[in-house]
Amino acid sequence: MSTNTSHKPVFERRESEARSYCRGFDTVFTSASGAEMTDVDGRTFIDFLAGCSSLNYGHNDPDMKAALLDHITNDGIAHGLDMMSDTKAQFLETFEKLILEPRGMDHKIMMTGPTGTNAVESALKLARKVTGRRDVIAFTNGFHGMTLGALACTGNAGKRAGAGGAPLCGINRMPYDGAFGDDVDTIGQMEMMFDNPSSGVEAPAAFLVELVQGEGGLNAASKDWVERLGRLAKKHGTLLIVDDIQAGIGRAGSFFSFDDMDVEPDMIPLAKSLSGFGLPFAALLIRRDLDIWKPAEHNGTFRGNTHAFITARVALEKFWSDDKFKNEIAEKAQILETRLQRIADMVPGAKLKGRGMMRGVDVGSGELAEQICGEAFRNGLIIETSGSFDEVVKVLAPLTIPVELFEKGLDILEKAASTCVEGHNIAAE
Amino acid sequence: MSTNTSHKPVFERRESEARSYCRGFDTVFTSASGAEMTDVDGRTFIDFLAGCSSLNYGHNDPDMKAALLDHITNDGIAHGLDMMSDTKAQFLETFEKLILEPRGMDHKIMMTGPTGTNAVESALKLARKVTGRRDVIAFTNGFHGMTLGALACTGNAGKRAGAGGAPLCGINRMPYDGAFGDDVDTIGQMEMMFDNPSSGVEAPAAFLVELVQGEGGLNAASKDWVERLGRLAKKHGTLLIVDDIQAGIGRAGSFFSFDDMDVEPDMIPLAKSLSGFGLPFAALLIRRDLDIWKPAEHNGTFRGNTHAFITARVALEKFWSDDKFKNEIAEKAQILETRLQRIADMVPGAKLKGRGMMRGVDVGSGELAEQICGEAFRNGLIIETSGSFDEVVKVLAPLTIPVELFEKGLDILEKAASTCVEGHNIAAE
Amino acid sequence: MSTNTSHKPVFERRESEARSYCRGFDTVFTSASGAEMTDVDGRTFIDFLAGCSSLNYGHNDPDMKAALLDHITNDGIAHGLDMMSDTKAQFLETFEKLILEPRGMDHKIMMTGPTGTNAVESALKLARKVTGRRDVIAFTNGFHGMTLGALACTGNAGKRAGAGGAPLCGINRMPYDGAFGDDVDTIGQMEMMFDNPSSGVEAPAAFLVELVQGEGGLNAASKDWVERLGRLAKKHGTLLIVDDIQAGIGRAGSFFSFDDMDVEPDMIPLAKSLSGFGLPFAALLIRRDLDIWKPAEHNGTFRGNTHAFITARVALEKFWSDDKFKNEIAEKAQILETRLQRIADMVPGAKLKGRGMMRGVDVGSGELAEQICGEAFRNGLIIETSGSFDEVVKVLAPLTIPVELFEKGLDILEKAASTCVEGHNIAAE
Amino acid sequence: MSTNTSHKPVFERRESEARSYCRGFDTVFTSASGAEMTDVDGRTFIDFLAGCSSLNYGHNDPDMKAALLDHITNDGIAHGLDMMSDTKAQFLETFEKLILEPRGMDHKIMMTGPTGTNAVESALKLARKVTGRRDVIAFTNGFHGMTLGALACTGNAGKRAGAGGAPLCGINRMPYDGAFGDDVDTIGQMEMMFDNPSSGVEAPAAFLVELVQGEGGLNAASKDWVERLGRLAKKHGTLLIVDDIQAGIGRAGSFFSFDDMDVEPDMIPLAKSLSGFGLPFAALLIRRDLDIWKPAEHNGTFRGNTHAFITARVALEKFWSDDKFKNEIAEKAQILETRLQRIADMVPGAKLKGRGMMRGVDVGSGELAEQICGEAFRNGLIIETSGSFDEVVKVLAPLTIPVELFEKGLDILEKAASTCVEGHNIAAE
Repeated sequence: MSTNTSHKPVFERRESEARSYCRGFDTVFTSASGAEMTDVDGRTFIDFLAGCSSLNYGHNDPDMKAALLDHITNDGIAHGLDMMSDTKAQFLETFEKLILEPRGMDHKIMMTGPTGTNAVESALKLARKVTGRRDVIAFTNGFHGMTLGALACTGNAGKRAGAGGAPLCGINRMPYDGAFGDDVDTIGQMEMMFDNPSSGVEAPAAFLVELVQGEGGLNAASKDWVERLGRLAKKHGTLLIVDDIQAGIGRAGSFFSFDDMDVEPDMIPLAKSLSGFGLPFAALLIRRDLDIWKPAEHNGTFRGNTHAFITARVALEKFWSDDKFKNEIAEKAQILETRLQRIADMVPGAKLKGRGMMRGVDVGSGELAEQICGEAFRNGLIIETSGSFDEVVKVLAPLTIPVELFEKGLDILEKAASTCVEGHNIAAE
Repeated sequence: MSTNTSHKPVFERRESEARSYCRGFDTVFTSASGAEMTDVDGRTFIDFLAGCSSLNYGHNDPDMKAALLDHITNDGIAHGLDMMSDTKAQFLETFEKLILEPRGMDHKIMMTGPTGTNAVESALKLARKVTGRRDVIAFTNGFHGMTLGALACTGNAGKRAGAGGAPLCGINRMPYDGAFGDDVDTIGQMEMMFDNPSSGVEAPAAFLVELVQGEGGLNAASKDWVERLGRLAKKHGTLLIVDDIQAGIGRAGSFFSFDDMDVEPDMIPLAKSLSGFGLPFAALLIRRDLDIWKPAEHNGTFRGNTHAFITARVALEKFWSDDKFKNEIAEKAQILETRLQRIADMVPGAKLKGRGMMRGVDVGSGELAEQICGEAFRNGLIIETSGSFDEVVKVLAPLTIPVELFEKGLDILEKAASTCVEGHNIAAE
Repeated sequence: MSTNTSHKPVFERRESEARSYCRGFDTVFTSASGAEMTDVDGRTFIDFLAGCSSLNYGHNDPDMKAALLDHITNDGIAHGLDMMSDTKAQFLETFEKLILEPRGMDHKIMMTGPTGTNAVESALKLARKVTGRRDVIAFTNGFHGMTLGALACTGNAGKRAGAGGAPLCGINRMPYDGAFGDDVDTIGQMEMMFDNPSSGVEAPAAFLVELVQGEGGLNAASKDWVERLGRLAKKHGTLLIVDDIQAGIGRAGSFFSFDDMDVEPDMIPLAKSLSGFGLPFAALLIRRDLDIWKPAEHNGTFRGNTHAFITARVALEKFWSDDKFKNEIAEKAQILETRLQRIADMVPGAKLKGRGMMRGVDVGSGELAEQICGEAFRNGLIIETSGSFDEVVKVLAPLTIPVELFEKGLDILEKAASTCVEGHNIAAE
Repeated sequence: MSTNTSHKPVFERRESEARSYCRGFDTVFTSASGAEMTDVDGRTFIDFLAGCSSLNYGHNDPDMKAALLDHITNDGIAHGLDMMSDTKAQFLETFEKLILEPRGMDHKIMMTGPTGTNAVESALKLARKVTGRRDVIAFTNGFHGMTLGALACTGNAGKRAGAGGAPLCGINRMPYDGAFGDDVDTIGQMEMMFDNPSSGVEAPAAFLVELVQGEGGLNAASKDWVERLGRLAKKHGTLLIVDDIQAGIGRAGSFFSFDDMDVEPDMIPLAKSLSGFGLPFAALLIRRDLDIWKPAEHNGTFRGNTHAFITARVALEKFWSDDKFKNEIAEKAQILETRLQRIADMVPGAKLKGRGMMRGVDVGSGELAEQICGEAFRNGLIIETSGSFDEVVKVLAPLTIPVELFEKGLDILEKAASTCVEGHNIAAE
C-alpha cells in the first residue's frame, strides 16, 4: 500500500472544506526541487503554478537552502517578534542597497504579519490615517486578500460572500484598465467623478491596484493607464498603493511591476516570493513621510519571519545584484508568449493575457480552461486557471526554470489544449 | 566596533515606526537556545517573553530542529499552497490522535493564513455564515488581531485608532468576567439583554473570548463564568469561539485553556506556539457540522506552512503524548505563583493575575511596571508588561525552562521589582 | 349602508401592510374634539392614546383652531421652505420668552424635517460633527425613529429587522436605568468602560436618551441616574441628547421631562405635541455653541410647518404662560396613579410604570395587556400597550382631559382589566 | 418701524445656522396666493421656486383652502396616527381612481413619515428586505434626503459631510445618464459590472433614481436610458425605485415623471406637491407583491397627515380628472423653453436643462447664476440655482401660474440675466 493511499483519508476526514488546491491536484507531494514536485508515488510534475507566484526562484533553491540550514544548525533566531537581529539587519541592508537605492526610492519597510492580506490591511489603515479620508478605490477583478479590510477591496463575489454578511464598507469600485473595452477612458471617468462635488464619489484615501491582476484574469494595465492613475492620485491627494504581492519580485518582468513606468507608488505591499523560498513573509513599503505609525499601532506575532530574512537576503543577492536575471526573465517571457499564441490560435476568440512571466490564454470558457488544466495535470504538469469565469489558463512557472524544462512543460500544455479543444469541438457539434 | 553598533542604524533608517519590541529591548540578537537569547555582544538574556507565548517550548528545540534540518536537507516541500503533502498528513494525523481523540473532540482543522488574526477572521466569517447573524460579541480587554474584522473585536483604543476611521462594525462589546468587579453578574446581564427583544442587543453570531487575556492584563475568566458563557451560547444559538492563540498550547496549564472546563467551543483559533518552533502557523478548529465553507471561500497563499507542520508534529509527539509535560507546567506554575506573590507583597494593592504559566503582577501603575521590566532587562531578563495601562508585569517564560534558570530569572525580576519599588516610593515621598 | 362599511375596503385594498393602529382600532373615524373621537357610525370614544402623545392638548383645541382658521382664511403662508415669515418669528419669539428664558436656556432652534426621527438624525449628525467621534450610546428599550441613523439607536428587534440588513452602525448599546435590576449601578459600569482604554467602548459623541421610555415600556429614569449621566457626559466630552419627543411638552409633568433635574441637555429633539394640534412639526434645540451647522448642511422641504407655527405658538401662550397647566397635570397624574394602582392590585406581580401623565401598568404579559386594551376599545376607550413584550397598558390621555371624562375612561379601563384578569385566571386554571 | 425690522432679529438670535433659504431671500413673508408671495412691507414677489416644487398648484389654492377650512371648522380629525378615517379613505379612493387605475398600476400606498427622506428610507428598507441584498445603486448628482439611509444615496459632498463621519454604507454610485458625456453608454457599463462575478459590484437591491435631478442640476434622463435601466433592473432582480418627490405630481409634464416611458417602477416615493397645499405629506407607492411589511415594521407618528388628505384629494380631483392640466403644463413648458433659450443665448456655452416645467439654464458658473437670482429677487422674483456648482438658474414656477404672470416673471429673469451677464463680461475684461 502506497503512502498516498494511507495519507489521503486524513485530509477528507480532518481538513476543512475550505481546502482547495488539493482537490484539483489529487496526489500527496513529498519533495520538490527547482521547477519540479514529486509525489508519494515517485511521480514528478513540472510546476507551472509555483505556489501562486510564491516560488519565483523555484523550490528549495540550493543557495537559500544552504544559508537556512546553516542558520538553523547554529541556533540562529527562529522567532524574535520584531526585536532587532543580525539577520533582519542584513535583510534590510540588502534590500536597501539592491532594491531601493538603485531606484532612488526612499521607502521605509514595515514588517507586517506574514500574509499578503496583512500587508494590504496595513496599507489601507495607514492610507486612511494619513489622509483622514475613509474610502479607498479598488478596481474590478482586483484581488487583495481575505481579511475583512482587504476582502472589501477584492472583487470576487464568491470570496466576498465568505464575509457572511459582515459589512464590506469603505470601498468604491472602479473599472480597471480595459474593463469596459479598449475605447473607454476609465481614468477620465474617475476624474470626472472627483471633479464633480455632487458625484457622490470623493477623491479617496488611496487607489489600491495590481498592475497585473493575478487572480482576476491576468489583466495587465497599460503603462499609460498606470501613469495617468499616478497623476490622478497626486492631483487629488490620493495615495497610490501598488499591490505587488503576485506581480512583483520579478514575475511581471522586473523586481517591481512598475519598474518601467513613470509612477511613484506611495505604498507597496509585498509577500509571496519575497522570502524567495516560499516561507511566509510579507512587508509593506511606505513612502518615508507617510510612515506616521505609532509604535505597535499595527502589531502581530510573526512580523518578520527570521528564517525568511535569510532566504530573502540570499535571493536578493543572487538574483537582483545585476540585470542578468531580469534579462533571463525577458527571454523566457518571449518563449512563453510565442508558445501561448500557438494555443490561442487553436481556440477561436482566444486572447493572450498578462505580461512578463505572468501570462495565460483566455480560452473563452471556464469549462474548457479547467479541462485543459486537468488534462495537463494527468500528464505531469501543475497548472491553474484564473479570471472571473476561470476562463484563463495561467502560466506561473518559476522564473528560474531551465528553458528545456519550460519547453517541456509548454509541450504538455499545448498537447492538453489540443486534446481538450478537439473534445470541446466535438461536444459542441 | 561591535556588530551591534554597525547594525542598529538600519532599523532606524529603514524599518517603519510601527516597530515596537526593538525599542524596549535595545540590542541586536543573533542566536537563541532553550530559554535564552544571545546578542551580538555575546550577552545572554533569560527570555520571559518567549515570543509572546510563541515559544512555549523554548528556542530551537533540538528535536524539532533535527527534524526540520532533515526535511530541508532532503528537499521536502517548503511551500505547497494547500496541496496535500506527507508532512501535512502527518501533522493532521498526530493532531487528531494526540489532541482531538483523547478529548472526544471531532473538530475539523482549517489551515488559515499563518497569523492569529487570520484564524480569528476565518472564525468570524464562518460564524456569520453559519448563523446568518451579523453581530459578534467580544469582551472588554480582548485582543484578537489587527486586520479589520479582528481589530473590531480588539478592545485596545490605540490599536483601534490604527484603523484610521474605517468602520469597526458588527461587534457588541460586553464586560469580561470581573470587569465590573467581582460581584457583578456579567453573564446574567448579557442574558437579560438577549431575553429582552427591545434591548437592541440580539443574541450574536458568536462570542469571541480568550480564557486568559494575554494582552488585556492577564485577566483569567473563572471556570464558572466560562461554563455559563458556554450554556448561554447554546441557549441562544450563538457559537462559542475560544481564542486560544496566546493562552493555548500549554500556556494556561494544559493544551487548551478550557481543558478542565465543561465547555465545548465551536471554534478555536490557534497560532503562536502551534508550530512549536516559532514559525508562522495558524489554524482554526471547527466543530464538524459547522464546516460549511465552500472550497477556497477563504483562501490565502501561506495556509499551511510546511516547515511548521514538521516542528508542530514533533512538538505534539514530544510534549503531549502523555501527562508529563502538563504536570511539569503545573509545578512551574506553582513556583511562579509563589515568587510573584513575593513581588506583589512589595507593592501595596498589587494583585496576582493569570493562571498556569501565564501570570503576572498588577503593580498598580504602568510607570512602575515599565521601570521593573527595564531594570530586569538591564540585568539580563527579557520581560514585558500587559494590561490597559501596562500595569501588569507579565511572565511568559518558556514552559520548558529548566527550574534553576526559571528561578534565576525570577531572582532578577524580584530584585528589579525591589529596586524600582524603592525608587518609586522615594519619588512618591 | 354606513360610510364605515363602504370605506373600510380601500384600506385593505390599497394601504400598505405596514399600517398598524387601524388594525387594533377597527373603525373609521370622522371627527374629534378634546379627549374624544367619533367614528362614522356616530360612536364616540374616549382617547387615552392621544396620537401617541401628539395630542397633549386634545383634539381641535378651540383657540388653536380659531387661529389656524384665521390664518388660512387670510392666505397666510402654508409652505415657505425655511424662509422668514411673521408666523415663524412669532413662534420663535414665544418659545424664547415662555420656554427658554425662564429656564435660563440659551439654545438655538433648528427646524428639522417634521418628524421626530428627522430631529433625532439631526442631533446625531451634529453630535458627530462637533465631537469628531463616531459612536453614540443609546439605551436598552430606547425608541428614536425609523430612518437609518435613528433606527440604529432604537432597541426594538422587529423595527431593526425592517432595515433589511443595512448596517446599523455607530451605536453602542448600554443598559437603561434599572435594566439590570435596581441594584446594578449602570452609570458606574459605563464609567468603568470609558476609564479603561482597553474596554473597546470609548466615550461616545453623545448619549441619546429618553427620560421616560414611551415605546420601551414606560421606564422612567430616576433623577439621580439622569444627573449622573449628565455629569458622566460632561466629564468625557460627550454630548447629552434628551429625546423629549414623547415625554416632553408636558407629558411627563412639565414642559421638558428634565425640568426638575439638575442636568443641562446639549440637544433636545422635539416633535409630537410640539405643534399642539397634531400637525407634523419637529425641531431640535441645540446648545448655542454647538450650532456649527453650515447653511443647508441638513436641509429638507417641510422644515418649519407654517400652520404648525401658529398652533404651536397658541399652545405655548395658552398653557405655558404660568404654572397653572403644570399643576393641573400634577393633579391628574395623581388621579392616574391612584387608579392604575387599583388595576395593578388585580394582577399578582403587576407594577406601576412611568411618571406624570405618562403612566401604565405592567400586567406581566402582552397577551393580557392586549386583551385589556381590546376590551376597553369595545367599551369606548382608545388605549394601547407598550414595552418589550407589549406587557404594559399605557395611558396617554390628553393632558387637558376634563377630570370627569378622565375618570370615566379610567372606569372603562378598570372594568376591562377586571373582566380580562378574571378570564385570564380562568384560562390559567 | 416695520414688522420686518422687528421680526428679523429673532431668526439670527434663535434659529440654527442650518437655515438657508432665508439667507438669500432676505425678507419676512406674511401671505401668499397663487404664484405670488407678499412680505411684511407689502411687497409682492412672483414665486419661481414654489416651495422647491412643493407648491405645483400655487399657494392657497381656493378649492383646497375651502375644503380644508370646512374640515377644520367641523372638527375633522387633525391627527389620527394611521387609524382609518373618512378623509384618508377618500384620498385613497381618489388616488386609486384617478392615478393608479388609468395607468393600470396596482401599487399599494404606504403612508410614511411626512418627509421625502422618510419615503426614500422606507423604499430602501423594503428593497433590501424583499431582495435580501444589501447594496443599492444611486447615481451621480442624485438627491434623496438627509437622514442617514437616504443621505448615503445623495451625491452632494457638503450634505454628506453633515453625517459627521457616520458610515454612509450600502451604496454603490453609478454615473447618471450623460454624466460622462453623451457618447458613454453608462447602462452598458453597469451591465458589464453585473455580468462579471469578479467586478466587485453585484446587482443591487435597487436602483434609486430621479428622472429629472432637481437638486443635481436639472439633468433629465432620456427615455431610452430610463427604459434600459428598467430592463436592466428586471434582468437582474433589481428593484427600480423612481424618486418622484421633486419631478413628480406634474412638474416634469405629467403626474409621474415616467408617464410617457415604457417602464414600471417597483416603488415610487412621493412628497412635496403630493398634498397640493404645501402641507407635510409623503407616501411610497409599492408594487403590490413587494408589500411584505409587517404591521408597524416602519412606523412613525405623523404618517398620514389628515389635513393633507383633504387638500391632496381636492388637488387630484381638480387637476388630474382629465388631460386639461397636463396640456396646460405642456403649453407653459413650451413658453419656458423658448424664454430660457433667449437667456442661454446671452451666455456663451450656456445650456438648457431639464424638461416640462422643471427647466433651467446652465450659465456655466455658480457665481453668475447666483448674481442672476439675486438681481431677480431685488426685482420681485423668487428663484434659485441648482447643480454641482450652483451653475443652473432653475425655474420651478407653480404649474398653475397664469401665462401673463409667468411671462412677467420671465421678463424679470431675462432682464436680470442680461444685467448680470453684462456685469460679468465687464468684470472678465
